[in-house]
Amino acid sequence: MSELAPPLEQLVHELAKLPSIGRKTAQRVALHLLQVPRAEAQALARAIGELCDRIRLCRDCFNLSEQELCPICSDPTRDAGILCVVEDPGNLLAVERTRAHRGLYHVLGGALSPLKDKGPDDLRLRELLDRVRQGSFREIVLATNADVEGEATAVYLSRLLKPLGLTLTRLAQGLPAGGDLEYTDDLTLRRAFEGRRDF
Amino acid sequence: MSELAPPLEQLVHELAKLPSIGRKTAQRVALHLLQVPRAEAQALARAIGELCDRIRLCRDCFNLSEQELCPICSDPTRDAGILCVVEDPGNLLAVERTRAHRGLYHVLGGALSPLKDKGPDDLRLRELLDRVRQGSFREIVLATNADVEGEATAVYLSRLLKPLGLTLTRLAQGLPAGGDLEYTDDLTLRRAFEGRRDF
Repeated sequence: MSELAPPLEQLVHELAKLPSIGRKTAQRVALHLLQVPRAEAQALARAIGELCDRIRLCRDCFNLSEQELCPICSDPTRDAGILCVVEDPGNLLAVERTRAHRGLYHVLGGALSPLKDKGPDDLRLRELLDRVRQGSFREIVLATNADVEGEATAVYLSRLLKPLGLTLTRLAQGLPAGGDLEYTDDLTLRRAFEGRRDF
Repeated sequence: MSELAPPLEQLVHELAKLPSIGRKTAQRVALHLLQVPRAEAQALARAIGELCDRIRLCRDCFNLSEQELCPICSDPTRDAGILCVVEDPGNLLAVERTRAHRGLYHVLGGALSPLKDKGPDDLRLRELLDRVRQGSFREIVLATNADVEGEATAVYLSRLLKPLGLTLTRLAQGLPAGGDLEYTDDLTLRRAFEGRRDF
């Protein structure tokens, strides 16, 4: 016998393609969906369909949006003088949650990565340069990830943007909040040390 | 501004209801679905819909099935003399993967649990007794979980089934394969000790 009934196997197969979801979790989720009221499973299926139909990219910053301009770009209270450059919409949301940034964003659509075959032409760099040249930005914050690809992307961006003569900053690296030195990995600790500040 | 666009928020909300999926994973999955080809997201939505439409419970053992009888119950090569009682279809699949059991199953639909307000009437006990009384089983394997609720259910079942005069067994408990005594929790180790066998 085949182990799972075909409709179940099909769903497990689709679920297991998702990030953070292995085959075991996929199977648990699929079995769960058989136990909940039918309407709940269908609400999930519908939400997936609606997502694809209703979400597009903001014309200016490439954030996810239902309108031509995303809520951030169309918010007149945001500081149009400071631009935060992020890799993807998930990172934008993470910065947004901190409430530390009241300016605008630019979503690159990834990071430079030879392994993933992502070069400068695959990121929204031309659009970034156009915005910076036209815009009234006084500061650009490079908020790419603190991994190798994010670092490489930040270095590349800094070379592009430096000649334009505005303030260019990068997110600080160091100990995470509540971090214990003993349990901090070496690279993080080294960066925290190198980035030490006057007290 | 609302943090997420409403269709995105809706999907994150639905995903976060699933087991093993918190809000962070839900958001990662939703953002991922925006990046994959549209057909892939729609395949997932369709698979969820088809699951609900095509899967039902086996008439005899309450396993998940597309037909009136599941592939195990309708397989003439299975040993109809040995019945393995499990809590749910996920556990049935786990036993099935071991290939250690060539008999039939009975899916209870959970375990006795005062906390979850699950009593004997919420499990398929009457159906189990009917099968055992009618059937030609020579052995019943109680394969409920090794947790408090699974144990309580096994004890309850053993009281119901003992009077019927057939062999009643329970899955062994002890060290997991490859288990190191030093890193084994006390209860597991105690059960392994208590269950020691002649060598």
